[in-house]
Amino acid sequence: MDWIDEGLRINTDLAHRILTDFIRDELARHGFERGVVGLSGGVDSSLACYLTAAALGPENTLAVRMPYRTSSPDSLEHATAVINELGVEELTVEITEMVEPLFVRFPDMDQIRRGNVMARARMIILYDQSVAFNGLVVGTGNKTELLLGYSTLYGDSACALNPNGDLYKTQIRQLAAAEGVPQAIIEKPPSADLWQGQTDEGELGFTYENVDRLLYLLVDLHYRPEECVEAGFDEMFVREVHRRMRESQFKRVMPPIAKVSGRTVGHDFLYPRDWGT
Amino acid sequence: MDWIDEGLRINTDLAHRILTDFIRDELARHGFERGVVGLSGGVDSSLACYLTAAALGPENTLAVRMPYRTSSPDSLEHATAVINELGVEELTVEITEMVEPLFVRFPDMDQIRRGNVMARARMIILYDQSVAFNGLVVGTGNKTELLLGYSTLYGDSACALNPNGDLYKTQIRQLAAAEGVPQAIIEKPPSADLWQGQTDEGELGFTYENVDRLLYLLVDLHYRPEECVEAGFDEMFVREVHRRMRESQFKRVMPPIAKVSGRTVGHDFLYPRDWGT
Repeated sequence: MDWIDEGLRINTDLAHRILTDFIRDELARHGFERGVVGLSGGVDSSLACYLTAAALGPENTLAVRMPYRTSSPDSLEHATAVINELGVEELTVEITEMVEPLFVRFPDMDQIRRGNVMARARMIILYDQSVAFNGLVVGTGNKTELLLGYSTLYGDSACALNPNGDLYKTQIRQLAAAEGVPQAIIEKPPSADLWQGQTDEGELGFTYENVDRLLYLLVDLHYRPEECVEAGFDEMFVREVHRRMRESQFKRVMPPIAKVSGRTVGHDFLYPRDWGT
Repeated sequence: MDWIDEGLRINTDLAHRILTDFIRDELARHGFERGVVGLSGGVDSSLACYLTAAALGPENTLAVRMPYRTSSPDSLEHATAVINELGVEELTVEITEMVEPLFVRFPDMDQIRRGNVMARARMIILYDQSVAFNGLVVGTGNKTELLLGYSTLYGDSACALNPNGDLYKTQIRQLAAAEGVPQAIIEKPPSADLWQGQTDEGELGFTYENVDRLLYLLVDLHYRPEECVEAGFDEMFVREVHRRMRESQFKRVMPPIAKVSGRTVGHDFLYPRDWGT
């Protein structure tokens, strides 16, 4: 698999330049110069925070910590380390009081539903604070997550622009190391921290290292599933990942509108995002 | 303006057929046969509820009422009338307890921010209940609203499919009348009911009747703004509507992802929504 790992290696200097330009340009296009990041203390949001601070300056970057009652103390501590290191603006808003009424009302809610409620409550706070800060929400979702659909629609995936979305998790780690994100953050097991003991890799059933290699073949090199098996990947694993990729497509496009007129939003009324500027 | 009103007239039988087929087909495509509608008691959500019940049967339609402390009692009463008329499944979940902690924490929040928090809290409940009901969220936003950006991103505009989105508000009224939506609902002044005394037309500064005529020229007939003025519309009004349309484009597309690889979600990794099925 060495040649695949080689293909997954990124030029971190170039990525830094492209991504900080992207953040500055996308904001400017809509008349903004400030960014807001939901900072969980994980590597994705830490990297987004480093990139935003580098692009806009720490005084134009707001990091929002949004812990829940059961959130890991490590998460908060790691988020604090990032904030102190960068000197960005910061705010902590607990989501506990917002989400508990719903948990009490529907006591049969399982962990997945609770996790979705929590991710969406964080979106509410982030979008609201972006108005108060006069900035836009900078997304943190990486390419692995996007392709697997491993995120909450209208929750953690909600953003105005996403600098991380074309970097696989293992590439996020490469860039995070180059940007100076603390090693403890880069090396800890990735987790959405939506319930105690949750880890991404435990929930998904495979490691990021492996799935990034497979996704690189499937997506970047246009391999067919059979060809991935020939290249040495387990057939069941290939099938599962390919299925996840296809079945999560609905999260990567706008909802469909029924066409009844001559010109319809999303069908033939189509303009670039920055049409108005 | 008679010829424009003529152009805005719809064949309600045909629309009924297209929209009920759309609801059934879009759900089936993703393996579902049940729909969930956030029922405010306004004409848009009432129509969506009638169409969903017609497409799927009342037993497969869940209407969710989500009042806030200050919501108009009329809204709840009208929603109840629709539920009783159709015999759909129903649920009432107050959003007050969910949103008040944020209002208390940020007492300087203005009405717009509060309204957005409320619309998004309703999205959370609707999406959560769609899991419990084993259905998908049926959207209610109309074409006027979509084109003006007059809705909350990740709030009331969030849905899995939208049967209303290609009908202007005045066309929603035509179809609602044909479907048998109570006249009191069709005739009351449209309002998001996010604060007391709010009406859409008061907030927008123009009537739906007028703006629908203008949008029909601009969008359906591809008129340039100057041509709309020549056709008899006030120049300031045309400019304002054209500006709103352009500046809200960001609500009608996915957020941009910075491109750093050979194949990127939203750039050149593109598939139809139902790729997986």
